[in-house]
Amino acid sequence: MLTDSQRERIVVVLVSPRNPLNIGAVARAMANFGFSRLSVVAPYEPHWREARSAVGAPQLLANAHQAASLSEAVRDCTLVMGTGTLTHRKAEQPVVRLNELASMVDRELHSGGQIAVVFGPEKHGLTREDLSYCHVLVEIPTDAQQPSMNLGQAAAVCLYEMATRGGTSIAGSGTAEDRIDAAAKVSNSPKQAPTSGNLDILAGLIEEVMVAAEYSPRMMQEANRHDLRLILRRMDLNAVDSRRALGLFRRILRRLHIPKS
Amino acid sequence: MLTDSQRERIVVVLVSPRNPLNIGAVARAMANFGFSRLSVVAPYEPHWREARSAVGAPQLLANAHQAASLSEAVRDCTLVMGTGTLTHRKAEQPVVRLNELASMVDRELHSGGQIAVVFGPEKHGLTREDLSYCHVLVEIPTDAQQPSMNLGQAAAVCLYEMATRGGTSIAGSGTAEDRIDAAAKVSNSPKQAPTSGNLDILAGLIEEVMVAAEYSPRMMQEANRHDLRLILRRMDLNAVDSRRALGLFRRILRRLHIPKS
Repeated sequence: MLTDSQRERIVVVLVSPRNPLNIGAVARAMANFGFSRLSVVAPYEPHWREARSAVGAPQLLANAHQAASLSEAVRDCTLVMGTGTLTHRKAEQPVVRLNELASMVDRELHSGGQIAVVFGPEKHGLTREDLSYCHVLVEIPTDAQQPSMNLGQAAAVCLYEMATRGGTSIAGSGTAEDRIDAAAKVSNSPKQAPTSGNLDILAGLIEEVMVAAEYSPRMMQEANRHDLRLILRRMDLNAVDSRRALGLFRRILRRLHIPKS
Repeated sequence: MLTDSQRERIVVVLVSPRNPLNIGAVARAMANFGFSRLSVVAPYEPHWREARSAVGAPQLLANAHQAASLSEAVRDCTLVMGTGTLTHRKAEQPVVRLNELASMVDRELHSGGQIAVVFGPEKHGLTREDLSYCHVLVEIPTDAQQPSMNLGQAAAVCLYEMATRGGTSIAGSGTAEDRIDAAAKVSNSPKQAPTSGNLDILAGLIEEVMVAAEYSPRMMQEANRHDLRLILRRMDLNAVDSRRALGLFRRILRRLHIPKS
């Protein structure tokens, strides 16, 4: 089982949910499995906070964060996990089966990170663009005949899996408290991953360099931006690597802007 | 993973569901995880089969069985599993944690049985009376602060657990097909459990004997009936034991009815 303080480092993110009843259902499942941090990105209905389906979780809905973009919602997270099925898509990032979710969450919590678990809109799930902000795609193993899950049910299954099977894989010989202390120590170490926001800053800077160096034509910028997000998340940089890369590209950019003598 | 033929031996039973949307949501989750047999006991709304929430599962709803009582719905099952939390109740039967569900299902499938997974109505879950028809109570490990799950979400979590973690614990060295063959062989052996319907017949006969023997006053009959159902399910009789007991009590009853000379 995850501890309360571990659950507080996990945020559930809903991208453009259409039906407030589904938002409420997600909030209810979060309360059922002891999670409290919800972030809703660009919701379709303005009055989603009043969803009556949030049985036992009205406060959780009231405290939910509303973000304008997925990038903003996951800014402070060091591991962003998209959810979905692979029936109608080919993943551009590593795929994690749902039964491996808990051990991945454990490793990230152990190294002091913050985690986002991201669910897409009801109709089509996360887009390719949304997924470019995700380090991994968590595959929910549904039947090929009927792969598409209801949003509230998909969230319930993922939260159940994390809550009940998380907090055990980094076992060691010590007590739970020893392990929490160890995790806290690690969190000050340079092994920690950069946040999604740090990667966005790095990506923006690299893009500026690409423009300044006349690396790619304007019509390729959008595609390059997409690939860059994916590559940076796939590289598994630690926070120090990420700061170094930032310093290097800043230097390159400055040099590129100096007129040639 | 459970095979298709294993899933066909598992029936999902909803006792007195009030909201057709929840029935539809259960049907959808069943389709997501490859289950097809639904039985609805005394539904509140007559038009439950038209629930629009059964996305991708209208045929499953159309084929669902409607039963007048839980006893009738589980008649052919050899293992009846009630679901719920233990926050507001003390179980009268063995409690199985949700993460142990798959291995229990595997054992029953292996010995050729039929399984029911039973969900109670939205408001209060399964009653003590409903649970007296269950061999075990499957405990969904929800937070003590907010234990009550939405019906569709509770079903999704249980079905996910069975579908993805079932079919593996009876591993052995053979292939999946060897194991299915072995299970089929066992199903003809006397180790098979009696069906819930067989136990109901035995319970009815024992009650007749209790009356004929003037064992208990009339006002105790309801309580005795309840306890008898529980005891018979706790005894873990095999089909042969159950037939023997039936024969014995028939003989006793006949003797009791012969006027003393």
